[in-house]
Amino acid sequence: GDAAAGQAKSMMCAGCHGADGNSMVPTYPNLAGQNAAYLEGALKAYRGQERTGYQAAIMYGMAAALSDDDIANLAAYYSSK
Amino acid sequence: GDAAAGQAKSMMCAGCHGADGNSMVPTYPNLAGQNAAYLEGALKAYRGQERTGYQAAIMYGMAAALSDDDIANLAAYYSSK
Repeated sequence: GDAAAGQAKSMMCAGCHGADGNSMVPTYPNLAGQNAAYLEGALKAYRGQERTGYQAAIMYGMAAALSDDDIANLAAYYSSK
Repeated sequence: GDAAAGQAKSMMCAGCHGADGNSMVPTYPNLAGQNAAYLEGALKAYRGQERTGYQAAIMYGMAAALSDDDIANLAAYYSSK
């Protein structure tokens, strides 16, 4: 993925996960330095609403409009932080 | 939670998440520096099998035998890394 494109796309995420991936909210996960492959899988699981329970439903709306490229770019961005 | 007790308990986790919480497997999440409150919630969701989809089922067996104290200690340990 392209981290710069991911940064542009991440404005939507910053409110909960923090502009640099260190979350504002202790019950929301930090994304900074997370594994890109894990992030991609998780975002796709939210987009497809395959992940359920706990806080998954919050992410459905966030991920619904993301393309595979968006997801790869966001994963590249946060894993680079 | 008690990070030292968490470290002792974390031998079970190290195989996938790494001894210090930096995962060996790119599709498994790093836990090092993750928010303790998030980790506690996630472990309880796995223990209760409320989280489903994606890679959740792998964690059911891991979390099944954990007490609330174990969970608090593990969360304290990994968030301190």
